[in-house]
Amino acid sequence: MVYNFNAGPGILPPEVLEDARRALTDFNGTGLSILEIGHRTPAFEAVVSEGQALTRELMDLSPTQEVLFLQGGATTQFYQVPMNFLAADGHAAYLDAGIWGSKAIKEAGLWGGVEVVGSSREQGYRSIPRGYEVPAHAAYLHITTNNTVEGTQMHEMPDISVPLVADMSSDILSRRIDFRRYALIYAGAQKNLGAAGVTMVVVDRAQLDRQVRRVPAMLDYRQHVENGSMLNTPPVFAVYVCLLTLRWLKSKGGVDAIEAENREKSAMLYEALDSLPVFRPIVAKEDRSGMNAVFVIDDPALEKSFMDRCKAEGMVGVRGHRSVGGFRVSLYNALPIGHVSAFTELMRDFNQKH
Amino acid sequence: MVYNFNAGPGILPPEVLEDARRALTDFNGTGLSILEIGHRTPAFEAVVSEGQALTRELMDLSPTQEVLFLQGGATTQFYQVPMNFLAADGHAAYLDAGIWGSKAIKEAGLWGGVEVVGSSREQGYRSIPRGYEVPAHAAYLHITTNNTVEGTQMHEMPDISVPLVADMSSDILSRRIDFRRYALIYAGAQKNLGAAGVTMVVVDRAQLDRQVRRVPAMLDYRQHVENGSMLNTPPVFAVYVCLLTLRWLKSKGGVDAIEAENREKSAMLYEALDSLPVFRPIVAKEDRSGMNAVFVIDDPALEKSFMDRCKAEGMVGVRGHRSVGGFRVSLYNALPIGHVSAFTELMRDFNQKH
Repeated sequence: MVYNFNAGPGILPPEVLEDARRALTDFNGTGLSILEIGHRTPAFEAVVSEGQALTRELMDLSPTQEVLFLQGGATTQFYQVPMNFLAADGHAAYLDAGIWGSKAIKEAGLWGGVEVVGSSREQGYRSIPRGYEVPAHAAYLHITTNNTVEGTQMHEMPDISVPLVADMSSDILSRRIDFRRYALIYAGAQKNLGAAGVTMVVVDRAQLDRQVRRVPAMLDYRQHVENGSMLNTPPVFAVYVCLLTLRWLKSKGGVDAIEAENREKSAMLYEALDSLPVFRPIVAKEDRSGMNAVFVIDDPALEKSFMDRCKAEGMVGVRGHRSVGGFRVSLYNALPIGHVSAFTELMRDFNQKH
Repeated sequence: MVYNFNAGPGILPPEVLEDARRALTDFNGTGLSILEIGHRTPAFEAVVSEGQALTRELMDLSPTQEVLFLQGGATTQFYQVPMNFLAADGHAAYLDAGIWGSKAIKEAGLWGGVEVVGSSREQGYRSIPRGYEVPAHAAYLHITTNNTVEGTQMHEMPDISVPLVADMSSDILSRRIDFRRYALIYAGAQKNLGAAGVTMVVVDRAQLDRQVRRVPAMLDYRQHVENGSMLNTPPVFAVYVCLLTLRWLKSKGGVDAIEAENREKSAMLYEALDSLPVFRPIVAKEDRSGMNAVFVIDDPALEKSFMDRCKAEGMVGVRGHRSVGGFRVSLYNALPIGHVSAFTELMRDFNQKH
């Protein structure tokens, strides 16, 4: 038995894997593998349009928001966003709450002015910055809703008048938020949406009108919208796995149902972390992530012993990010609650023995 | 029975599909699907390094050439190449021999001067331009070795002193050429290398030193090289399918063996096209592609009737590109010769009846 707590690529629902496997042999009765079909065929066009419609429905998007399946991961969005929307003589506001957000800031600096309106860097990113002001002239405010590496999450969303841009790679569709308020949302699929190799982008048409410079075709959101997310050959299989994951989420009852389950999972884990003295959660309590729980064991010998124990019991992916150390347990949508209880049992047993 | 003549995504070897299916269930005994494994794990790092080593071996690369697995397709390389290597006050030479090459030219214009040194556009791209001169001051010469849409292929490679950049998307590893002569080669995987979602880039270290401007991290070939092709989360599954295809090619005897087979396939098809009066191949004989054979049937009623016949007999993907019309039969590495003989038999039968 393997318990997959990977931070991403992470666990997928067994139903998704089963359907993906079937499509590798014969995709929808075509007699061809999904890897061998043309992307400009009715069979694949149906995959894209169903994926877009399901995203729209699950996120309760407004009719002016467009859904795209792109390539290159969030790291590509880090520069694609400012290249499109940050003029050389303009300014964009960024919240600096984790290493991924700080990479986005670095990329933005290549295109225009960057105002870091709030930062928790000095505190090792162990909390979400608060009390920041966003200048009215900012082209947009960029936030990271969940910090995968540091284990923090924004629980209150900014109430601002400038366009809001969010990297939601590690918590998209894990909880109900008002997705309509965002000018642009992006998320690498390999955490809550599917497999690595596709990035979901949700962009409001009003934002498309704010483009500030001519950009290459592949970086032009408008061209992707005009071409129905098929400007060039899309990552066919990754898009299909994304559709399967969206279907699975809908069958589970959608965002509200998965949020309830995710709350139960994280409550169970943090309760163990708070009550067992061997373990020490390290981020501000009010900013704890429901997706990635980060904690340490202060005694290095015990740390090693716990890591060995996890390995022996098939608990995979619990080592903290190399920049933080310690442990990180990821609780993405597809992780069954039984895996969390197996982990907390192991924690209790380990705590008792030490 | 389905005969897959798709132009890309195209046919893959059954062995590759079988191994891919196995990895979807349990990747290398990890107990996890290949879609769920971390990319920074020894198991996946081994996939990347074996993929690089096999590419090196099969293409007989020089030790100074680096192999990368990137995202975004050839369309991304269309702008990434000039963004890195074409200065605003510089010039790059382009050969205009097909619609894909013309898209590359358009993207280059955003970054610096473009000199189209030869063009067959006026002739509907039915031949490869000849007798062109490349200015010595050009930053590079960009060529497309095989024109997927028009069905032409370069059989003599340019003998020039400026760095040579080639889009080899539709004929990479299909024939022996001196890959060492290229400063940069790129190829979308979905024709001869695997599934859509990954782009192979081979770049010489000398070329990396010719970078002309600061570019975003994801567009910086040097950063990809420094990070072992794992600057961010790679398209894990697509890279794996690429490795499986490279392994398959090696097991077939490598490039020389596949070239012999490919020659046999295309000779069989062109022989039928030349001898059966119903069909008319439309490109210059000396520039015919070994990968994509393009032809027409002049009588519209017969054209429709042949299309119906293909459909009825499970011949998939034979419709010409929408910009050219007529028919296109793709003969990628993975297409068995038996499929070509089945198609030529159908042609003979159809010709006899009409």
